[in-house]
Amino acid sequence: MRALPAPWILLLIASCTGTERTRDAKADPSRESERGLAAHIVDLSLSEGRAYELLRELVTQAPHRLSGSDGAARAVTWAQATMQRLGLANVRLHRCMVPRWERGAPEQVRVLKPAPAHALACLALGGSVGTPAAGVEGEIVVVRTSSQLEALGTAVRGKIVLFNRPMPRALRNTFAAYGASVPQRVSGASRAAKHGAIAALVRSMTTRIDDVPHTGGMRYAPDVPKIPALAVSTMAAEELAKMAKAGPTWVRVRASCRMLADVESSNVIGEIVGSEKPDEVVVIGGHLDCWDVGQGAHDDGSGSIECLEAARLLIAAGLRPKRTIRVVFFMNEENGLRGALAYAKDHANHKHVAAIESDRGGFEPKGFTSSARGDAFARYKAIVDDLRPFGMGVLIPGGGGADIGPLGLQGVPLFGLLPAWNRYFDYHHSKRDTIDAVHPRELALGAAAIAYLALRLANE
Amino acid sequence: MRALPAPWILLLIASCTGTERTRDAKADPSRESERGLAAHIVDLSLSEGRAYELLRELVTQAPHRLSGSDGAARAVTWAQATMQRLGLANVRLHRCMVPRWERGAPEQVRVLKPAPAHALACLALGGSVGTPAAGVEGEIVVVRTSSQLEALGTAVRGKIVLFNRPMPRALRNTFAAYGASVPQRVSGASRAAKHGAIAALVRSMTTRIDDVPHTGGMRYAPDVPKIPALAVSTMAAEELAKMAKAGPTWVRVRASCRMLADVESSNVIGEIVGSEKPDEVVVIGGHLDCWDVGQGAHDDGSGSIECLEAARLLIAAGLRPKRTIRVVFFMNEENGLRGALAYAKDHANHKHVAAIESDRGGFEPKGFTSSARGDAFARYKAIVDDLRPFGMGVLIPGGGGADIGPLGLQGVPLFGLLPAWNRYFDYHHSKRDTIDAVHPRELALGAAAIAYLALRLANE
Repeated sequence: MRALPAPWILLLIASCTGTERTRDAKADPSRESERGLAAHIVDLSLSEGRAYELLRELVTQAPHRLSGSDGAARAVTWAQATMQRLGLANVRLHRCMVPRWERGAPEQVRVLKPAPAHALACLALGGSVGTPAAGVEGEIVVVRTSSQLEALGTAVRGKIVLFNRPMPRALRNTFAAYGASVPQRVSGASRAAKHGAIAALVRSMTTRIDDVPHTGGMRYAPDVPKIPALAVSTMAAEELAKMAKAGPTWVRVRASCRMLADVESSNVIGEIVGSEKPDEVVVIGGHLDCWDVGQGAHDDGSGSIECLEAARLLIAAGLRPKRTIRVVFFMNEENGLRGALAYAKDHANHKHVAAIESDRGGFEPKGFTSSARGDAFARYKAIVDDLRPFGMGVLIPGGGGADIGPLGLQGVPLFGLLPAWNRYFDYHHSKRDTIDAVHPRELALGAAAIAYLALRLANE
Repeated sequence: MRALPAPWILLLIASCTGTERTRDAKADPSRESERGLAAHIVDLSLSEGRAYELLRELVTQAPHRLSGSDGAARAVTWAQATMQRLGLANVRLHRCMVPRWERGAPEQVRVLKPAPAHALACLALGGSVGTPAAGVEGEIVVVRTSSQLEALGTAVRGKIVLFNRPMPRALRNTFAAYGASVPQRVSGASRAAKHGAIAALVRSMTTRIDDVPHTGGMRYAPDVPKIPALAVSTMAAEELAKMAKAGPTWVRVRASCRMLADVESSNVIGEIVGSEKPDEVVVIGGHLDCWDVGQGAHDDGSGSIECLEAARLLIAAGLRPKRTIRVVFFMNEENGLRGALAYAKDHANHKHVAAIESDRGGFEPKGFTSSARGDAFARYKAIVDDLRPFGMGVLIPGGGGADIGPLGLQGVPLFGLLPAWNRYFDYHHSKRDTIDAVHPRELALGAAAIAYLALRLANE
C-alpha cells in the first residue's frame, strides 16, 4: 500500500476537532460562576448520568401505563420505590380518581368496496365508544376542515366521515402543526355525529407518510350521540381519500373499546427539601401515564425521568437548593388530566414559586418555553441564557405543559422544556414510542437543563 | 363515558401551540428582506423538498460506494445524470485517481483463551493489510494511551495490542470526543508494530456500548512493518479488556483485505451559473464515496444530497445567484482525499469566494462553523444570524471539512454545516448508517441552510 498523502490525516483531524469550542468567547465575568455550575451539571449528566437506565427500568416494569390499568399501578409502585432509593425526601402518593378506558380486542377498519376487500391500519381513539359486535358499515365521506363538514351537513347521515387534514409540513414547529390539526381528532366525532354520521375516522397526527396509526384523546360533546372514533395511518387515510374521490367507498368499522367506572390512582411525589425556605416549592415533573401502545418512552417516560434524574444529579453533586425542589409524576395527562387538577387543587395553599414540565419528548433540548411576561421573562431569560454554551439557552414565550397548566391558572410561572421537535410526532401515541427511539445523550442533556433551571429558580 | 373536564382540552391545545413563535420579537427591520428570503427557502424545503427522495435514490442505486468500487462508479453515473435532470449547468466529471482497497471475506477476531472460544464483532480498518490465511494468533495487551504503549515498549513483541481508549462521554461535542480518540485508529497499528506487535485491535469510535463495529481509515508509517488493524465493537473491547485484566487472553485474527492498484474515478460537478460574476464561485459539496458497510447515508450521502438539493431549491425558487454556485461531489474522502486534492489543484486558477461543506451527518442543523477570522467572521456571522429564527443561526470558529480543506490552504473562506451531533457516532462507518437513520425534516433543514448561505455568499 502506498502511503496516503499527508494532508489527508491533517485535514481529518482538523475537521474532527474544529467544532469543539462553542462556549461564548465573550462570557460576562460576573456570570462565570453560574456558567461553571451549568457546565458541572452538564458534564456530570453526560459522563455519569443514569437517566437512560432509569427510563429502561420504567418501560420494562410498566411499558403500558394507561390510567387505571395494571401497568399504571405498577408504574406508581416503581416510581415511589425509585424515588426512595435515589434519596428523595417526603416520597408519597397523592391519590386521585382517574377514568378507565379499555381498548379491548384489536380494532378493525375494513374496506368493503371497491374490491378487493382489505384491512387498514387503525387504532381506536382514547375515550371512544365501541361498535356493535358486527361493526358498523357505511360509505366514506372525506373532509379536511370543519367548514367542509358543515357545508356537507346532513349529507353525511348514515355515513362514516374521514377527517383527513394533514399536519402542515411547512410549519417548522411540529407542535404548531399538531395544534393546527389535532382538533379534528379531539372533537371530530361529535361534529360528524351532529349531522348523523355513524363513525369517524381520523388521519393520524404525524408528518410521516407511513402505515403506523397514532391514537390520542378525544371527547364527546354532551348533546349528541356518541359514535366510534378511530385513527387510521396516514397511508390508509391517503388511500381512502383517493378511493373515495374515484367512487363510492364503503368500510366496516369494528371496535370493542369501552369506558369503565373511575378508579383510584396516584400522582407520585418526592422532594429535595430546601435549606433556607423549605416551604417554598419549585415543581418539576412529567406524566407517568401513557397510551396503551408502545412504551410511552418519549411521551412521557422521558419527561418524567428527566425530572427524576435532575433531582438525582443535584443530590449526587451535593447542590442543595435554598427552596424545595419537588418532583411530581402526574397521573392521567393523556385522557383526563385528573392528577394535575387534583395536585393543583390540593396544594393550592403551598407556595409554588415556579413549575417546570417536560412533555415534548426526550430529544436534545434547545431551552425552555415560559409563561412569564415582561420583567419576569427578562429575568428568567438571563438565567436560561447561561445554558447557551451547551446549546440549551433559548427561552421563548409559550405554555409550560398540560400538567402544570392548572398551577399556571393560580399564577405560578411555568416553564416547559423545549427539545428538538422534528422527530417527536413520528413516535407520539404509537407503537413506535419505545426506548430505542430515545437517545441517552439527548435525555441526559434534558435532565441537566432541568436540574440547572430548577436549582437557579430555587435559589433565586 | 362522562365528559372530560373542560380544562383538559384547553390545556392540551395550549400546550401544543404555545411554542409556535420562535422568531425574534425584536427583528431588525433592515434585515427583514433577508429573513423573508430565509423563511421562503426553509418553507419551500420543508413543504416541497426532495432531499430525502434524492438520498433514497442514491443509496438504492449505490449503497456501497468505497473509492474504486463498482458502487462508487454507479454513484458517479447517478450523480451526473441527476444533476442534469435537476437542471444544473456545466455538469461534468472531474477525473482523479483513487486508491482501491477491498475488504475481502468477512474478517474474524476469535477469542482462543480463556475458554470458551468465541468470535467478537469486528471490521478491518480501511487500508489495513490482511493476515495469512490461517490468521495470526497472539496474547492481548490493552492500552489506552500512546504513552502506555511506549512504556510497554518491546513487551508487546509478538502480541496483539488492543487500543481501548473510549470517546470521552463528558465532552458535549462528540466530534471533539472523536478527535480525542481517533488517533489510535489512524496510527495505532504502526505505533504497535514499531515495538514488534503482530496485529492491532481498536475500540470502535462511538459513544455507545453495543456490539456494532465501526470501521474507518488508518495509515501505516513508512518505516515499520505493516500489521493487520481491525476495529472491534465497544462491547468486544470491554470484554477483551476485562479478560486481559483477569489473566492471559489469546485471540486469533483473520482478514483477507488488501490494497490494489489505484484506479480512475471522478468528482462530479454541476453549477448554477452566476448572473453577474459567473467566474466567481461558491463551492458547496460533500463526498460521494463512503465505506463498504451500511449505506453511507449520513456519511456523506446526506451532506452531498443537501448540497444538491440546495441548488435544486434555488433553481425551483427562481433565485439566481450573482456569482456561480458550484455543487461538487468529492470522491475518496474516506481513504485518501484524492478528489479534494485534485479539485483544488486543478481549479487553483478559479476564483473561489467561499466553500461550504456538509460532512457531519444529516441531522438538524444548528448553523455553521467557519474558518474566517476577525472582520470577515463578523460579517459572516451577521449573515448566518438571519437563520436564527429557524434554529440554525450559530456561527462558530472551526474547520469547514476535509474535502474543502485544500481550498482553505489556498485562502478560500470555509464553512461547515453544523448539525446536532449526539447521534452521529452511533452510525458513523458502521452497518447502521442507513437511510432509516436520517430524518426527512432534518435533512430538508440542512439543504435550506446551505441554500441560504450559498446564495448570500454568492450575492455578497
